[in-house]
This record gives sequence, structure tokens and C-alpha cells, in this order.
Amino acid sequence: MSPAWRLLRPPLAARGLGAYFTRMAATSAHQGVVVSKQEIEAFIVRCMRKVGTDKAHAESLAEVLVAGDYRGHFSHGLNRLQMYVTDIQKGVCQPSGSPVIVNELPATALVDGKNVLGPVVGKFCMELAMQKAQQAGIGWVVARGSNHYGIAGFYSTMAASRGMIGMSFTNASPLVAPSGGKKKFLGTNPISVAAPGKDGDSFVLDMATSAVALGKVELQHRKGEQIPSGWATNSRGEVTNKPDEVLSDGALLPLGGTIETSGYKGYGLAMMVDLFCGVLSGAHYGSNIRSWLNVTDPADLGQCFVAINPAAFAPGFEDRMQDLMNMARSQEPADPSVPVQVPGDPERRHMAKCDAEGGICYHGSQIQFADDVARKLGVEPPKRK
Amino acid sequence: MSPAWRLLRPPLAARGLGAYFTRMAATSAHQGVVVSKQEIEAFIVRCMRKVGTDKAHAESLAEVLVAGDYRGHFSHGLNRLQMYVTDIQKGVCQPSGSPVIVNELPATALVDGKNVLGPVVGKFCMELAMQKAQQAGIGWVVARGSNHYGIAGFYSTMAASRGMIGMSFTNASPLVAPSGGKKKFLGTNPISVAAPGKDGDSFVLDMATSAVALGKVELQHRKGEQIPSGWATNSRGEVTNKPDEVLSDGALLPLGGTIETSGYKGYGLAMMVDLFCGVLSGAHYGSNIRSWLNVTDPADLGQCFVAINPAAFAPGFEDRMQDLMNMARSQEPADPSVPVQVPGDPERRHMAKCDAEGGICYHGSQIQFADDVARKLGVEPPKRK
Repeated sequence: MSPAWRLLRPPLAARGLGAYFTRMAATSAHQGVVVSKQEIEAFIVRCMRKVGTDKAHAESLAEVLVAGDYRGHFSHGLNRLQMYVTDIQKGVCQPSGSPVIVNELPATALVDGKNVLGPVVGKFCMELAMQKAQQAGIGWVVARGSNHYGIAGFYSTMAASRGMIGMSFTNASPLVAPSGGKKKFLGTNPISVAAPGKDGDSFVLDMATSAVALGKVELQHRKGEQIPSGWATNSRGEVTNKPDEVLSDGALLPLGGTIETSGYKGYGLAMMVDLFCGVLSGAHYGSNIRSWLNVTDPADLGQCFVAINPAAFAPGFEDRMQDLMNMARSQEPADPSVPVQVPGDPERRHMAKCDAEGGICYHGSQIQFADDVARKLGVEPPKRK
Repeated sequence: MSPAWRLLRPPLAARGLGAYFTRMAATSAHQGVVVSKQEIEAFIVRCMRKVGTDKAHAESLAEVLVAGDYRGHFSHGLNRLQMYVTDIQKGVCQPSGSPVIVNELPATALVDGKNVLGPVVGKFCMELAMQKAQQAGIGWVVARGSNHYGIAGFYSTMAASRGMIGMSFTNASPLVAPSGGKKKFLGTNPISVAAPGKDGDSFVLDMATSAVALGKVELQHRKGEQIPSGWATNSRGEVTNKPDEVLSDGALLPLGGTIETSGYKGYGLAMMVDLFCGVLSGAHYGSNIRSWLNVTDPADLGQCFVAINPAAFAPGFEDRMQDLMNMARSQEPADPSVPVQVPGDPERRHMAKCDAEGGICYHGSQIQFADDVARKLGVEPPKRK
């Protein structure tokens, strides 16, 4: 088993991976602990402040991680806290400082993230993109010298909540084999696109360009169950149904799976994301990116943030967007009890559940993990509701 | 069998569908007829002129269709000629006129295609996008009132050949079911992204957002063979291995296949393309788009064209792009005899084959089809080499 994969395994119990499945299916009735969003944000700020992070930076990180959990993307929320703490403690990510604009034109900018926390870079770039879109119709901003920025959907929805189309992309540590290849080459390189409809409704696509997230493979491994064909390969580059073969020295497959089912398209999309992020900005790209959970080198991730002002095109954008979403939701379902959804609907359902429960319902093991982090750092653990 | 699907079937023999497979595998040694690119272009111009198409418009169409065949995308080349001829003959597409800019900002424009041939609209929009990218860093141009524009990759590579990143998207007639749905809702809505490397090398992604093209299902049907799980569904929205169930009243699956293998991502991407094309421009979108090969109404397709000027970002773009492509091609292959490829490599191999043969090698049946079109229109058929 390679060191990178081994590092992933101990905190598994804490990763709330069941959440992956609540997104596309009915909410599971796991035994959980509800913590208010405010308290989780405050807890993350306490931890990050304790290791010397600038207050505003800690608050940005907390906002983005809690948004991940609130939307049901538990893999990108509280459970990643230890990684950010460690990056600051080891000095591979800067606890303070400001991103700077390296050069710009009316609709574009190159930003140097100055190796501060990813959410600080991301919010800076998305604000800049929206300003440019206001004047030029579109803003396309790329960053180098950045770090993990949480869910890509946080940044695209910043734009959608202000009436614009938002896009966000990031490159990431290698986990995915190219079509026809044997080894991990590209990251799960996500694409997020968000657009506003009427009355608060919205389209929010937020997807890795791999077939599935690594967590889904890990979960099957823990349950002692097989994985479907099309998710991942073994060390020989062959499709496997055995999670342990993937975790020991295999790789995830790109979206589409094997070549027979067009996995080369997902591979092409992952490479497109790296083009926008690593190549355009001059950050790391491809297999130059540090391996997952490596904490000896700065990540130097590349990221891309886009805002498009619909007012620059045909009037009535939100009406048409809503019409397209309504059209989708009224498509005849294969199973009459499961309506056709629009990207963002599963997350909307999860947020409504959190609102009804007065906070985010974490797996007990994930709260245990947070308590462990609190004890190690000597800060107050998150208060249960 | 629905009328739309039935219409697709007669010209099947002429569609050169084997070409789909030459793109990802070794070139098949089919019995072919070689015709020079110049002669095929001249033939297409003869046909389009004969039905009253403006000379420059006919030439633009010919250029784009021959580029499709030259790249090995035979489904989008000569074999589509009858459709363009019919659209002009029936008056649902205009034989002359010019696209107009409806409104613009420094980096964006909305264009009304005035219902002229798709390639005329596409080239106009891409030129405009490149001009804007020169000044503003990026140009993002959307068109309404357009028609089928051939391969999406024609427009993205226009930008790449001038040192820019190019993107192109179009919506299309419904053929793909949404995840969890039973019926055709969105088109195969392609995405193309092209970027230049060094010494003429390039990255060219040109992909439908469906799992496979309809032609692959038709081909299996003709051969009397089954289709793999993950390509398409029957009338009940269930995955099927029987091509006739798909062709009678089924639908293509989005990239990723079923929900289990993340088909909802391909569905989200298809919807994103319609957002950029139909919704942003005010063209038709979703199931409002006319059914495939309907020739009673104008198509009113929406399309989107983007040029990004790498000079607006970090110096050395082409070096890094080449490095990423070299890195990809040197990844260890699962089968030592089949190297890992970069999007655009299969097309490059096909173009080299055409160059070596002095023209494009068509299936005999496809040339027969061209001869039939020539006879019906009373123009000289394409001369064989």
C-alpha cells in the first residue's frame, strides 16, 4: 500500500461518507449529533486561530467548510479540518497575507494566491471576476499559489446569489488514471457551474471529473462489499470490483469509466480543468502536484473562477433558466416515486433538513474526530445543540 | 418506431459509422473510395449553390463538413449534406444574409444568426470572440437563430491555430434522457475545448455529453449485436442491451451512464451546455428544440463560442501545455502496445492517413449516397482520385 493511500485510511470513520449517498437517495437515518452552523464555524475558527491563522482567514475557511457540510458534501467540510491545521502548523501554507493581482485586462486577471488558505484566494478571485463581469460582461480569473479551497460550488454560487452565472475549477493531487493508463495522473479536478432561476431557485452543478469520489471506494472497503465496474482500476490498469485493489495501488477511473463507455471524455474534461487551472496560471499541474496529504511541500494549486453577467446577453435569463429547470423536473421519471432532479436539488434537500433540525447532523464518529482535534490543540470542542 | 428515429435509418449505410471506431482504435481496412479534400469541398459547394445558397455560405459549410471528415468525424461531414440541402430547399434555413450583433460589451456579445447556415454563424462568432480576447483577455459570444454547425471542434481549433484557447458548445435536438427519466429531453450537446502546444501540437477535446453518439447504437443494430450496459435505455427508462429497444422509443444515456456510475454528471454537463447556448441567448432550449431531422420549422439553435488569450495570464503557456501533453503521453499504458493519448491524437492520426492517401477515404456506400444527391440535384458527382 502506497503511503498516500495509507494516510487516507485512519480518519475514515470520521469522514461521514454516508453523506455521499444521501445526496442522490433518501436521507439515511444514521445516528447523528446536531451542531449549529454558528458553533461549527466558531469551532473551526478556534482551531485555526490556535495555530496562528489570521482571524479573517480562519473565518473564510470556516464559512466554506460549513457550507460544504450544510450542502451535504461532508467529504469537503469539517472532516478536512485536520489537513488545514497541519498545513499551517508545518508552514507549508501561510497563516496570513493577501493574494495579489499579477496582471489584468478588462475581463481577465492572473492572481498569485501567496500560498494562503484556499478559501481566501477563492473569495478574492471570485469577487474580482464578478467586478469584471459587471463592466466587461464576463470575468475570468485564474490563481496560482493556492491551496485546497473546499467545495467548488461555494464560489460558483457566490455569483449565482448575485444574479450571475458562476464557474469554478481546481486542479488537485493525482488520483485518476488517464484512459488506457495504469497509474494515477490527474486529480479529481472538479467543475462547478451555478446559475440563478426565479425566487431563489438555482442550477448548481458541482462534480468531480472522476467517475466517483475516492470516499465511495473507501466506504465499500469498510463495508466489505464490492464496487461496481466502472469506478476504478487495479495496479495493472484493469477494471476491478475489489476496493482493496484500488486502495493499495490502483486508481480512480475518469467520468464515463472505461474506453467502451467513453471514459476518455471524463479524462479529457479532467485535463481541460488542469489547462484552465495549472497550465494557464503557471501553478503545478498533472503529476507535478504533490501527492494527497503530503505535508512537506506547498500545494501550489491552480484554480479558475468565472462570472458571466446574463444582462450582457438576452433579457429574461432567469425566466428561461427557471423554465428549463421546471421542464427537467417535470420529465417523466423511470420510477414514479423518484422525480427527475436538477443539479443542486439533492443539496437543497439536505440544507432544508439542516434548517429543520437547527444545525448540521454529523455522524457521531465525526464529532469524536472534532473533539480529538480540539483536545490536541487545547481549544473548546464543538458544543452539541 | 417514432418518425424521428425512422427518418434516421435510410441513410445509415451511407454514414460511415465505422469511423467512430477508427478514432479510438487502429484504422480499419474498409473498402473505401479516396476523394481529394478540394473535390469534396467543390462538390458540397456545387450542391448548395444549386439550391440557391450564397457562394460564401456554401463555401463555409463545405469547409466545416470536410474538416469533420478529415478529422474522422464522418457523422458530421459529407453524410449530413442532405440535411443542409433540405433545410435550404424547404426554406427553414436562409440561403443568404448575415449574422448581426444584437448587443455587446468589451468581452461579450449576443449575436442573432438570422437563421443562416450554422458554419456561417459559427465562424462569425468565433472571429468576434478572438477579437475581443485580443483586447479584453477573453471573448464570450453566444448566438441564437443558428443551425447545425458541423463539428464543435472546428471553432475551438480556429482559436488554437491562432495561439488562443478556444471553446465551442451547441445545443441540439432531444436524444438523451435525464438521469432517472424515461424520455429524450436534452441533445447530445457537445463541448469542445482546444489549446495550442509547441510546433503545431495541440489539445483538442471534442465530445458529446451523452455516453455515446446515436450512430454507435445504430451500428450495433445493423450488425445484429448487443450494446454494452451504460449506453442507452428502453421506453421504460431501463438500461438495455438491445439496440432496437433504444431506436424504437428509448433514449441515449448521459456521459457516465446510470446513476450508479454518475450519469447525473453527464446530464448536468448537457444542461450546462444548454444554459450557455439556449438559455443565455434566448434561442430554443431543452425539449423546445425541434426533433431530429424535422424539416418544417427553423432550428433556432443556441451556440456559444469562447476565445481566451493566454498572453493575458502567465508567460510560457504553450511550453506548459506541451509539457502536460507530453506527461500524459508518457503515462504507463495498461496495454504496452497502446500508448496513452491526449484528446485530439486520434483525429491527428486520421488526418495523417488522409494526407498519405491524398484525400479522404469514404465508404463506398457514402460515395454512392453523394452520387445520389448529385443526381437528384443535377450537379456533377464528386470525382474519385
